[in-house]
Parts: sequence; C-alpha cells; structure tokens
Amino acid sequence: MKVLVLGGTGFIGRSLCQRLLTMGAIVTTMSRSPAVKIGAQHHHIQASIGDSSALQSIIPSHDVVYHFAHTNIPAEAEKDWSRDLAENVLPAVGVAKACADAKCRLVFASSGGTIYGKPIQIPTPETAPTAPISAYGVSKLCIENVLRLGSLKFSLPVTALRISNPFGPFQSGNKGQGVIAAFLAAALKGKPIQIWGDGSVVRDYVYIDDVVDALIMAAEKSNGFNVYNVGSGIGRSINEIILGIEEVTGRPLARTYTSSRTLDVPISILCVKKIRDDLSWRPNLDFIKQLSKTYDALTLREEI
Amino acid sequence: MKVLVLGGTGFIGRSLCQRLLTMGAIVTTMSRSPAVKIGAQHHHIQASIGDSSALQSIIPSHDVVYHFAHTNIPAEAEKDWSRDLAENVLPAVGVAKACADAKCRLVFASSGGTIYGKPIQIPTPETAPTAPISAYGVSKLCIENVLRLGSLKFSLPVTALRISNPFGPFQSGNKGQGVIAAFLAAALKGKPIQIWGDGSVVRDYVYIDDVVDALIMAAEKSNGFNVYNVGSGIGRSINEIILGIEEVTGRPLARTYTSSRTLDVPISILCVKKIRDDLSWRPNLDFIKQLSKTYDALTLREEI
Repeated sequence: MKVLVLGGTGFIGRSLCQRLLTMGAIVTTMSRSPAVKIGAQHHHIQASIGDSSALQSIIPSHDVVYHFAHTNIPAEAEKDWSRDLAENVLPAVGVAKACADAKCRLVFASSGGTIYGKPIQIPTPETAPTAPISAYGVSKLCIENVLRLGSLKFSLPVTALRISNPFGPFQSGNKGQGVIAAFLAAALKGKPIQIWGDGSVVRDYVYIDDVVDALIMAAEKSNGFNVYNVGSGIGRSINEIILGIEEVTGRPLARTYTSSRTLDVPISILCVKKIRDDLSWRPNLDFIKQLSKTYDALTLREEI
Repeated sequence: MKVLVLGGTGFIGRSLCQRLLTMGAIVTTMSRSPAVKIGAQHHHIQASIGDSSALQSIIPSHDVVYHFAHTNIPAEAEKDWSRDLAENVLPAVGVAKACADAKCRLVFASSGGTIYGKPIQIPTPETAPTAPISAYGVSKLCIENVLRLGSLKFSLPVTALRISNPFGPFQSGNKGQGVIAAFLAAALKGKPIQIWGDGSVVRDYVYIDDVVDALIMAAEKSNGFNVYNVGSGIGRSINEIILGIEEVTGRPLARTYTSSRTLDVPISILCVKKIRDDLSWRPNLDFIKQLSKTYDALTLREEI
C-alpha cells in the first residue's frame, strides 16, 4: 500500500509513519520541513500544502492520503485569521479534487478540542453544535466542511477524525502545543512549568498509539464522508496532569500561574461511542503508564 | 440612525433599505452594482466586499452594518469553491474588525436553506448539526464562524439570521435564485417553467416583509453572538407552489421537468421557535396573499 502523509513530519504524522512502515507500507511524507528519514520505504517531499502543483503531481500515485498539514499552530492562527484561512482552507479544495481524481481514500485530522467551542453537552458527541472560539478551530471546521463537499460531489471516501489532545513520544515540548510534553520537558530540565489560569481547565488527553490505531482504521473506510471523535472519553484537569507527572517522575513540579487564554474552553471531553461502535476502536486508558512511556522517550531524546 | 447595507442592491438589501428609509434612518448601500437611488437619505458606494480599504473608510460612520454581500449565487459558487471561499470568507474577517473598531452592531444574512445540509431533524433548530452539501452553504457557514469569533474576541454584537427561502416584491425572476419569482415571471410571460426533479422538493418560503421585520429586530441586539433561524416554519413542495401560483394567476402553468441538482437537499423546514421566544418575531402565514402581492409587484415592474 502506498500512503502519502501531508504534514508527515509533525507529532501525529511521524507516529503514524513509523507504524505504517512496520506494517509494510510505502510511505511518502510531504511538509515544509526538511526530511527526517525514518525507514528504507520512506520518501520525503519538501513542499507546502499550498503548493497545488506539488499536490497534483504527488497524490496520484498513492492509495491513501492523510492530511495533517496546518501552517500555523493555534496561537499563531489567532494572530492572523485571514492568513490561517487562506493558507489552510483554500488548499483543502485542491487536496479533495486531486484525491478524487486519483481515486485515493482521504483521512483528515480535525480538531476535537476546538471545533465544538464551549460544549453544551459533556462528553461531546459528533452531532453537537460546532461553535469554535479560536481561529484554528474555525479553519479546521471549514476544512471538514470543504472535504464533506468533496466527498459528496466527487465520490471521494473521506474520514475526518476529531482528535482531542494527543500526547506521547515524539511530541515536542517547545512548540506551543502539547501541555503534557511541555510539562514533562520542564520536569526533565528541573524548570518550573507555566500554567494558564488556575489549572482547572479540563481536557481529554488521548495516547498517540490509540490515535494511530484510529487513523489506520479510518483509512479502511471506502465510501462516503465519516466523522469520528477520537479521545479517551475522560476529562483531566491541568492539576491532575501535574499530579500524574509527579507520580511518574517521583519529584514535585515547580509552577507559575499566568492569566488564562481566551482561546481556551474551560472543559472539553469527547464522546467516543461512535468510533467504538462503527470501527471497534478502543482507547487504552492506563494514563500513568502512557505518561511514563512518554517521559522515558523524552529522556532518551534529551540525552541524544 | 446611520445604517450601512453591504450588498444593499440585492433583493433582501433593497427591501430592507426601503423599510429603513421609511423609519427615518440614513442609509448607505455598498455593492459591486451601480446605485439605484431609492430615497433622499440613501447614499451608494460602488465597491466589492473584498475592497478592505473601502470597508475601513465607510464602516466607522455607521451605527449598524448589515452584511448581505456574496459575490456568487449558489450555482456560481458550485463551479469554483476556492474562489467563493476566497472572495467571501476572507473579507468577513475585515468586516468584523472594522465593525468592532467602529463599535457598530453587525447583522449577517446567513443561509438557513443550505448550512444544515440534509437535516436530521425537521423542522430544523439552530442547534442541529451543520453539514452543508453546497459550496455556497460551506462559505456562508464559515462566515458565521468567523463572525462568532469576531464577536467573542472584539466584543462585537453580531446577529446571524439563517434565512430560509425568501420571496416577495423586488426579487428578480432571472438571477438563478428564487423559484417563486422565476415561476411568477414565467406565468406573466406565458412561458413554461422548468422544474428540477419531480417537484417534490420541500422548502420553507418566507415572505420578505417578515424577513425585514427580523432584520430590524436583530439590529437591536446589543451584545454577544446570536444566531436565529428565519423562516415560515412551514414546508411547501414545488408542486404546492405551482398550485398556489395557478390560484393567484387563474391560469394553468406549463412545465418541463429536468434532472434534480445535487446541491438540492430534498427537504428544508426551519424551526423558528428561538426567534419567536427571544425577539417576539412572528411570520405572517397568509401564503396566497403574499404570492398575490409578489405577482402584483412583478406585473407593475414588467409594465415599466
């Protein structure tokens, strides 16, 4: 199987690629970043999601296309909404058309933590109103809508996974995304962590291996437009995360508190019944063990 | 009160402006079309919604901004999704920012007939999932999301009205929008009407005077982001519309049938409980009388 991963050098992309390679797939990654060779069957193309001629030439030789590329992290998107929309929503039209022409299956990483906004239902099912309160969430939601249209008009199989807060090995602690990675990196360096607000903000943290399972299963969907929440289904506050990290590292974490960000919703927990029912996907819920594996991987990385 | 109407030369815009002028407002319209002077207190600026410097210079002197401008009708949007998104979604960021800077209130005409897609609940409430199946619907929904964000981040009062299928005097019968206007124009000329599908498609037709009432009420909302369905709450098939027109004109309508369009949802009826409860808005439900008034206006127009 030939698989193209747009945005393949990021946290989710890299984790997926490693699994795909162990499964015997031939993997091409495309991103603005230079290549990090991760196997003999891995090829890399350095190009932006906005490079429509690159997309049109690369997509046709693949069976499955994963779309993880986004040109801005949420905090950057917030600074220039128009740019985030222009750079990410408009190219989605071209991705859908090229995938349809090539008769690929398309899997899109949407954002379960941002597209619902302040949820009126907890845990939040896929049928809940989508009312994002961040520019990143607005763009991700609009891409979903473009891809739904592409699926319908071009008979393109599309699965959109609304992923909550993924964590695990390979997540960077210094990219402004991924609170667990950032806290673990601080713990390793003995530095204090910075907490937005009072630490009561609740998120649904899902382990990367479970996300990769869902991504693999999603690519097997061969018709229509399907959307699934991917999360643990369990809410944890920042303060609970800190307790977990202290348990794993055996040391107290020094902390400072700053005012909360307006792009934060106070609580986000996804209902994952649909993906359980449809794809028999199950998240692994041993949070402390997952934290521990993430910490161990980070320790190895920091030593290199 | 000084009111700016973006897209003020279209059907809804023109109907609203006439009412505003009778209420004593000073009205400025802005659109790509040349001016049609409709009163002493009416001024027109010929500019596109994409002209950000025009927006920035005009908006500050107004109390209320109505945003009806859309560069493409639904059938045109379908031909070039990227263009429709670029021309209509990106400028919404600038509209929101300029209105916030000027401390205006903003009222946006969203599309109740397209943003829900194939509704899973009939009549469809505002909390139903939004899953548009047309490019026009995707753009209108994304604009709503941009304006929600603008409302939240800039403390801008925004009301988005999800208007169903408006009809009434001033609607053009030859612009590819407005089936009632098109059928009445055909009836007047003694020409056969063209029906997409078998005439069973059900829509929620709302009379323009009721839409204008809702628009006036919406502008009085002075904080937050509010979204309301605006429809009659009653579904009518194309075949029922034809019967109504035959009753009004006293003559049978000749018809031809062609295959249905993929951008059509089979049924769309809006639940209007929220606007009834919050704003005490009530649609007038004398459909035959409304059809008759629309026909009379068209007769006068055709005679000129």
